[in-house]
Amino acid sequence: MDRLSDDPFETRLREAASRTETALAAALSGTSFLVAGAPDVLLSAMRHGSLDGGKRLRPFLVEESARLFGADPAAAAPVAIALECIHCYSLIHDDLPAMDDDDLRRGRPTVHKAFDEATAILAGDALLTLAFGLVAEADGAIEPGNRLALIRLLSREAGAAGMVGGQALDLAAETMVLDAAEIARMQAMKTGALIAFAAEAGAILAGAAPEARRALRRYGEILGLAFQLADDLLDETADAATLGKAAGKDAARGKKTLPALNGIAWTRNELDRLVGEAEAVLAPFGASAATLREAARFVAFRDR
Amino acid sequence: MDRLSDDPFETRLREAASRTETALAAALSGTSFLVAGAPDVLLSAMRHGSLDGGKRLRPFLVEESARLFGADPAAAAPVAIALECIHCYSLIHDDLPAMDDDDLRRGRPTVHKAFDEATAILAGDALLTLAFGLVAEADGAIEPGNRLALIRLLSREAGAAGMVGGQALDLAAETMVLDAAEIARMQAMKTGALIAFAAEAGAILAGAAPEARRALRRYGEILGLAFQLADDLLDETADAATLGKAAGKDAARGKKTLPALNGIAWTRNELDRLVGEAEAVLAPFGASAATLREAARFVAFRDR
Repeated sequence: MDRLSDDPFETRLREAASRTETALAAALSGTSFLVAGAPDVLLSAMRHGSLDGGKRLRPFLVEESARLFGADPAAAAPVAIALECIHCYSLIHDDLPAMDDDDLRRGRPTVHKAFDEATAILAGDALLTLAFGLVAEADGAIEPGNRLALIRLLSREAGAAGMVGGQALDLAAETMVLDAAEIARMQAMKTGALIAFAAEAGAILAGAAPEARRALRRYGEILGLAFQLADDLLDETADAATLGKAAGKDAARGKKTLPALNGIAWTRNELDRLVGEAEAVLAPFGASAATLREAARFVAFRDR
Repeated sequence: MDRLSDDPFETRLREAASRTETALAAALSGTSFLVAGAPDVLLSAMRHGSLDGGKRLRPFLVEESARLFGADPAAAAPVAIALECIHCYSLIHDDLPAMDDDDLRRGRPTVHKAFDEATAILAGDALLTLAFGLVAEADGAIEPGNRLALIRLLSREAGAAGMVGGQALDLAAETMVLDAAEIARMQAMKTGALIAFAAEAGAILAGAAPEARRALRRYGEILGLAFQLADDLLDETADAATLGKAAGKDAARGKKTLPALNGIAWTRNELDRLVGEAEAVLAPFGASAATLREAARFVAFRDR
């Protein structure tokens, strides 16, 4: 599926994705305390919905944000894969017939297609439940107070005030017309909350100072905005074969996006502006934030 | 709905339920950090699926187990309502058309009937997500290491190896015939895991010794077995008006229960035996465990 690039940033992103894959597979192996004794079919559905897929952008951000404050990628791993469990559960539930009703995800059948609807609901529930256990049991790697701070913030960002709330607003958008501010709010919750958490999480787990933590948070928010704009732009301009999922589906459902509302030229200009803002936020960290700077460019200007 | 009794135990259970109701309403009020800014419709669906209902047995067990080790009910409250959030989310998802497809719960329309299917999925997801945040932010009341231990165990007991796994086995039981051992395993996970957690949680949050903690765990497991047997017995013998939900539905779906397999006389005898075992486990705690002893009798011999 992926067209491999030898760009150093993309190589780094791929290596992080490979670490995420390994750690996630171990967490879902059935030998860990959190899932030992789980029914095979349920574990299979959880694996189908979470392994072997995606750019693993969120885990990468957790790792890179942690690295900026001197923490090892190994210390960041439990938080990185917890966040990916939550991202993947949200895709499983979003794809359900009662929600977006998608048959294809990352070029493969969605979980409710490969298994059935009930199993997909449960696999999503189980991945979400697992996520919090993974952070809680990160013994040694992350100081207890920081683990609790991560769990509390993750609960907010992934929950009714964050990702799930954004999904609820997105549903409402199917039957009413949102203006630009309402679309921005919905997307900041639905997509932005977890990406902002990813960037902030590295700072929290490494015990960074409040000011540095706020900077990473702001960087993550900017990245979330850029990610969604780029995604919507791709949805308008790319085809299904390139994306590995149905293209043009937002427009087909009558859902308005900011690129649809404001045009492609505005969108490209806004992406440039956001990358500039991300660079300004990262300026105090100097050369050590080079990878996070490249991440902003990658997210804004990607073609898939 | 409830026929009020002036039995001292039932009064105590009702008072605990009233505390749970108040604390849960506050957690879902929209002013707490964890849900502030959430869409109104989502919060309404979360409230519909969690407020004003049920005996609140699990929160009661958390409180009483904590009290046994000298902890205040106020310290136990965040864990008690977190557990109730998880119990209620599981009911919302179990009631979905793709699962048990129930229209009625506690004498009221289920969440997907009162709202819609997508909103019910999201309300369940949001309650589950909220639960872990509530335990994480129990500042002051519960020592950080104990909060992390609670989150880790709750993740296991509520997840693929516990409640969600039991639900997956229950689904499988619709298309294959389980023997008594398989039914027992399914029910120990589906219903037993959260009840055992409730009893153990009080010991953990109060920092009880490992041996005492194991005793409470065992007590909770026995209670879970009795709870499920009594529930299945009621399903066989009671009517919908008394239960506030459809009766006889397990038999109608061809799902075997232990009372259906072994008969009513065996079931009543087994319930007596379990109550005796619960009393034996609690014996070392003397008079201070009187309420937990009564809880076992209440759970085993209730008529609704």
